Amino acid sequence: MDFELFILGSSSATPSKGRYQSAQLLKVHTDFFMIDCGEAAQYQIGRYKLNHTKISHIFISHLHGDHFFGLVGLLSTMNLYGRKTPIHLFAPPGLDEIIQVQLKYSETVLQFPLHYTTLDKHVSEHILDHPLVDVYTIPLDHRIKCNGFLFKEKPKPLKIDKNKLPSDLSLLEIAQLKQGIDVVDENGNIKARVDEICLKALKSRSYAYCSDTKVNPSYLPLIKDVDLLYHETTFLDELSERANTTFHTTAKQAATVAKEANVGKLVIGHFSSRYYDVEPFLAEAGAIFEKTYLGVEGSSFAISKRVKDENND
Amino acid sequence: MDFELFILGSSSATPSKGRYQSAQLLKVHTDFFMIDCGEAAQYQIGRYKLNHTKISHIFISHLHGDHFFGLVGLLSTMNLYGRKTPIHLFAPPGLDEIIQVQLKYSETVLQFPLHYTTLDKHVSEHILDHPLVDVYTIPLDHRIKCNGFLFKEKPKPLKIDKNKLPSDLSLLEIAQLKQGIDVVDENGNIKARVDEICLKALKSRSYAYCSDTKVNPSYLPLIKDVDLLYHETTFLDELSERANTTFHTTAKQAATVAKEANVGKLVIGHFSSRYYDVEPFLAEAGAIFEKTYLGVEGSSFAISKRVKDENND
Repeated sequence: MDFELFILGSSSATPSKGRYQSAQLLKVHTDFFMIDCGEAAQYQIGRYKLNHTKISHIFISHLHGDHFFGLVGLLSTMNLYGRKTPIHLFAPPGLDEIIQVQLKYSETVLQFPLHYTTLDKHVSEHILDHPLVDVYTIPLDHRIKCNGFLFKEKPKPLKIDKNKLPSDLSLLEIAQLKQGIDVVDENGNIKARVDEICLKALKSRSYAYCSDTKVNPSYLPLIKDVDLLYHETTFLDELSERANTTFHTTAKQAATVAKEANVGKLVIGHFSSRYYDVEPFLAEAGAIFEKTYLGVEGSSFAISKRVKDENND
Repeated sequence: MDFELFILGSSSATPSKGRYQSAQLLKVHTDFFMIDCGEAAQYQIGRYKLNHTKISHIFISHLHGDHFFGLVGLLSTMNLYGRKTPIHLFAPPGLDEIIQVQLKYSETVLQFPLHYTTLDKHVSEHILDHPLVDVYTIPLDHRIKCNGFLFKEKPKPLKIDKNKLPSDLSLLEIAQLKQGIDVVDENGNIKARVDEICLKALKSRSYAYCSDTKVNPSYLPLIKDVDLLYHETTFLDELSERANTTFHTTAKQAATVAKEANVGKLVIGHFSSRYYDVEPFLAEAGAIFEKTYLGVEGSSFAISKRVKDENND
């Protein structure tokens, strides 16, 4: 399946030239999962020729405006385009009220179901059991209640190498092999071995989104070994004190997190509008964690399938 | 004083390629009066190098989202930039609640006063007595309560031609001349004539904003003879039936309004996203009212000072 991240906005609270507020789309097979929805996200979706009709789930990290001011506009546009299929919205308490009051005064009735899941726990929760991925919250450390999100591909049945498949296996026994379980006969002898008949397993891919937060060791176990980590870097290290008091992260700190968590790649964003040029973020983080990338508007990051490394998975 | 209109958005409910939702700035001397504030208006202000700190008054026509979804983001940005000077907000009932609920959940306290004037009358009101302009509502005919706005420059004292000023006039008598009143001596004889001593009066300039509405003769007297009229044209005449049922206007209808109201210039906008090319709007309206202009993003319309036409003012 496709598993690819599209960045719609890289700015923090105030927009700056050419930079938009936080919003991302994670392509999961044919659907888009939206992560945060800053103002003008719907314009950015159009600009990059992505398609809002493919959005099925929306995850809002917290209720600072730069992470949700684009949501009601996007929902309105979906409605005007005649959407009928549901949207599943995951957000902290309050967003439902914010949406409803705006729909009420504009006398708008959404023509599609909006299923709302309130995220109010202070520990990680399994919030979505989707056929292709599981989604968990990552409780972060910000000024108001804030969650990151971990998207983890579900393990798939193993594939059989048909040339090696014994002809005397039943369908039930083949299904058992695909689940990774050796087939044993009634006398206890091994009849078919997974490692001889099945192709190597593919690694379950994963993406973790961490914005907004100061660095806190509490969330490191949740992002351990993810293929792709997005971590906010509002400031450069020169403003680490300001990062601390505003509950944000510096590029250096985010890179250190990526290294400690042994992630595959690090994408950084949520840059303060005081920085006109964001290349210094890449330099600062890249010096600590080489596989760092700028999550600027229009960039995308495909997470490729790869064979499971038995020593490290 | 400067009296100039800047167009930030020309799209109707759903944004389309390169077109943004309704938002305008009217420069009144050194201040900006904002008229409607669709999503991403703050981005458009930045794009055209206008300055949000100069905005003093905001007028919202109605609570369909494409006319106000950018407001809370703009107010938040003003706050983050340390604004202390007040904003005067004029809007239908409900917008206050919409703003407050969003500030509440984001734990934001505005550091500047937000003075809210609720517009709930069904007749034209004088809503602002500003040192330079008077502002009146223009009740429109839309699906929900909607006002246009009429901005009318205040008459200024006449200017004296100093070479023609008799030397025996008191300061009080000179002030009287500037108000357009002849000076008469104690015997009833005219001592100084306005038309001999004063320069010709400048016309009070005016701008009328009409969006969203179907055409209704009730508002024609309010926009009579304005220098500049913005009128929505959501559809071309080919969709006049749809314009009627959705309480919108066609380009042909807006031009007919401009002609009947004897306005100076007509600016059109609020184009439906079904039209990729908006030139046909100009052709259709221009055939009826020659001085028609497309109010596309980035366009501006200065209303020049001109001498009062005594036969027609």
